Amino acid sequence: MKLQVAIDLLSTADALTLLNNVAEYVDIIELGTPLIKQQGLSVVTNVKAAYPDKLVFADMKTMDAGELEADLAFKAGADIMTVLGSAGDSTIAGAVKAGKAHGKAVVADMIGVADKPTRLKELKKLGVSWVELHAGLDEQAQAGYSIETLLEAGRNADIPFSVAGGINADRIEGVEAAGAMIAVAGAAIYGAKDPGAAAKALREKIQQLG
Amino acid sequence: MKLQVAIDLLSTADALTLLNNVAEYVDIIELGTPLIKQQGLSVVTNVKAAYPDKLVFADMKTMDAGELEADLAFKAGADIMTVLGSAGDSTIAGAVKAGKAHGKAVVADMIGVADKPTRLKELKKLGVSWVELHAGLDEQAQAGYSIETLLEAGRNADIPFSVAGGINADRIEGVEAAGAMIAVAGAAIYGAKDPGAAAKALREKIQQLG
Repeated sequence: MKLQVAIDLLSTADALTLLNNVAEYVDIIELGTPLIKQQGLSVVTNVKAAYPDKLVFADMKTMDAGELEADLAFKAGADIMTVLGSAGDSTIAGAVKAGKAHGKAVVADMIGVADKPTRLKELKKLGVSWVELHAGLDEQAQAGYSIETLLEAGRNADIPFSVAGGINADRIEGVEAAGAMIAVAGAAIYGAKDPGAAAKALREKIQQLG
Repeated sequence: MKLQVAIDLLSTADALTLLNNVAEYVDIIELGTPLIKQQGLSVVTNVKAAYPDKLVFADMKTMDAGELEADLAFKAGADIMTVLGSAGDSTIAGAVKAGKAHGKAVVADMIGVADKPTRLKELKKLGVSWVELHAGLDEQAQAGYSIETLLEAGRNADIPFSVAGGINADRIEGVEAAGAMIAVAGAAIYGAKDPGAAAKALREKIQQLG
């Protein structure tokens, strides 16, 4: 299982400072949606230039203009971009088309999709590289939130998937057991007192599991 | 009925060049989602600085972190920002909370919402300022696209609404007749040979209707 750090900070400088401590422990660097909107896609270009050997994931959460937005992300240097699973099929097909043209990956973010089993089958046909089973920051903040719903969807999925939704050292074993290809950790790393130590601990936990 | 120009160009310079010709004919200046992602929210700040007397609309299409993303847009100078109607209720409530704190408007973009009548009632309760009945660029490009579905949803809506989905001089009378508060024109203006003349013609048509 690979480890992806989701950076929900708000400036390129803060992202680069964080990465200075955590990049060595992660496989994929995700630049969050608010960060991209705040800074523009230059944050993708700058991070890819600093870490050319890492996979850079642009969390575009594209809902329309799929081919255009994917093309912008890949031209900026992204290796992976996201389209919303709730977007129309033509938007997803457009993003996949751009992904093929660039030889890069398009991932469907399942945030807010009610009927996950049906949509997962459709997304597989539409040709996305994998899906992200994702509970957003707002959903995680609600009383009674549990990652179990995401893991259940993963166990029944017939398409490679990542999991994002409050993953920390306690939850990562369950994520691996559910069959995830990638574990996405956000606040557990960037919100830690010592982000480098937190990323290192997650990496070691994954190595023990593997 | 007010006139909103949606700017789906990709640079601040191109947006400002367009506005130099069309701003005098429009009430609301919309900075499109791909433009914001490409340039960052500085495009909002720059356009608001150039046109302080116009309402600036940041098409954030927020799907998560509602309060945070709305706060970023308003701090950048937006008068209006969008949250996706398909976002979770807590995301929409968070954006509305930020809107109230700034004294600014939060609009729900209905793109991709299947059961519009039910969601419109919920969005009214959640306190959005108005809703945008919106067919995206990818949907408009499909065979058999008609704006009539949006107008039908508007006629039955119990909340103020704008309409966006290929509005041009031929379609604007139907939009006004359906009861729209705002008509959004994108490609009909920025894609015209003479954008200033196109915006002027739409403005005159609205004045004749009113």
